[in-house]
Amino acid sequence: MKLIRFGQPGQEKPGVILNDQPYDVSAFGEDYTEAFFTNNGLGRLAEFVAANEGKLTTVADGERLGSPIARPSKIVCVGLNYADHAKETGATPPAEPVLFFKSTTALVGPNDAIIIPKNSTKTDWEVELVVVIGKKASYVEEADAHEYIAGYALHNDVSEREFQLERSGTWDKGKGCDTFAPVGPFLATPDELGDVDNLRLWLSVNGKMMQDGTTANLIFKIPFLISYISQFMTLLPGDIISTGTPAGVGLGFNPPVYLKPGDVVELGIDGLGTSRQELKAYAK
Amino acid sequence: MKLIRFGQPGQEKPGVILNDQPYDVSAFGEDYTEAFFTNNGLGRLAEFVAANEGKLTTVADGERLGSPIARPSKIVCVGLNYADHAKETGATPPAEPVLFFKSTTALVGPNDAIIIPKNSTKTDWEVELVVVIGKKASYVEEADAHEYIAGYALHNDVSEREFQLERSGTWDKGKGCDTFAPVGPFLATPDELGDVDNLRLWLSVNGKMMQDGTTANLIFKIPFLISYISQFMTLLPGDIISTGTPAGVGLGFNPPVYLKPGDVVELGIDGLGTSRQELKAYAK
Repeated sequence: MKLIRFGQPGQEKPGVILNDQPYDVSAFGEDYTEAFFTNNGLGRLAEFVAANEGKLTTVADGERLGSPIARPSKIVCVGLNYADHAKETGATPPAEPVLFFKSTTALVGPNDAIIIPKNSTKTDWEVELVVVIGKKASYVEEADAHEYIAGYALHNDVSEREFQLERSGTWDKGKGCDTFAPVGPFLATPDELGDVDNLRLWLSVNGKMMQDGTTANLIFKIPFLISYISQFMTLLPGDIISTGTPAGVGLGFNPPVYLKPGDVVELGIDGLGTSRQELKAYAK
Repeated sequence: MKLIRFGQPGQEKPGVILNDQPYDVSAFGEDYTEAFFTNNGLGRLAEFVAANEGKLTTVADGERLGSPIARPSKIVCVGLNYADHAKETGATPPAEPVLFFKSTTALVGPNDAIIIPKNSTKTDWEVELVVVIGKKASYVEEADAHEYIAGYALHNDVSEREFQLERSGTWDKGKGCDTFAPVGPFLATPDELGDVDNLRLWLSVNGKMMQDGTTANLIFKIPFLISYISQFMTLLPGDIISTGTPAGVGLGFNPPVYLKPGDVVELGIDGLGTSRQELKAYAK
């Protein structure tokens, strides 16, 4: 199943993609929230769709897409999880996963504008595969981790490098600005994807390919990450884990290259669709 | 006004403290959530209490208290915000605030047990003053910051020092374990407190005073913190900012002293009450 949310920001309605066509499932009566995932929403939605497939209306062309999941309790990100990216940032690949949080207020739709924050000169891109948690996870064994996965989606882990690296303390300052988490176009349940450890992921800026990697190069694989994170905190249904980015971010160029108003970022992952964000300057 | 939430975990009801007596305000019909703070809940609750004061029933003695605010979108913490604490940890006081997040799943009631995580040997205490945000805050000017404050509360920013400092990357790993954020007993609106910049805060372990400081020694004051954090992310109504801890944490002793099962931590801040947590080992 492929889940979407469509409509204006804060008023998104639930939908599904069937045979490449988006359908409105507002009649299902639930948004894709923590409660939805907690209460077997995916199973119940599949039954609803099967029972109503002929009666569903399509989503109008040009409708805005929101994030395919409603605001979760947290967005946990994994840093330096591709060896080539660790190298380009001058970091040694870590002995265990580096974790940080994105403020959930950063979450936006896959094709929404990215707003360059006030006083930002180093806004950068990062194509990432995200895992959405399907059930409450605490001290999960790696062998059981697959039971905790609701699905996968595409994410641009937008990052302000000065805020992240030059402003005292942890990375969290440079990761959670408004619009810094475009997710989607859709959430794909695991059965929709082939081998999640062998997906191409890419990102271009103004049509020029900047990142072109594969999840085969993830240092820490998804079951390990779910198990690992769940040793430090409880993951709730609907929570997002962003698994890290391959080489080719702006920070890795010599000299570094950052985003400016008018730039267009496009990105994609095999089986998880593509997204497109235009950069805009902050304006009150 | 002083707000409490009481009842079993996940089933807390709203209450208020009037003349040192806790009253049930379930009839008000709203929990203390983001929506409550967004929609002038404090103003409406004050009207409800004024109109119903004679009819309210008291909360039974021995009722468990929950966190006085429901799970917020985020808990943002400020590190090293007292010079004496920065010194004891071997850190230089930072040029600007150090920020990190606590997973909101860590939030518990003021007198709940603190569970020492699996494989933890360095669970530590930190008495802190928290600010609860009253309205959506983005790029707030320091001079206007007071308009964004719903109130204040007591917080033990429980920290696992090995997870925080020795396990790669940011501090977030050691701050968000389940039960690591006992908040309360109550949320006090600003009018209930005297000068927030001159409050004694203290913490004892097994009756021995470990921290005894004053908010007069905050390096970065609350209006500055609200303004500062709001440059990097949008704060939502109900969000918690924890403002840092004074000297006297376990990490600062030579050799360090950490918590073990059976230990009892008690803490308090002038005007914000006291809380008490017993330490327990993790048990599945």
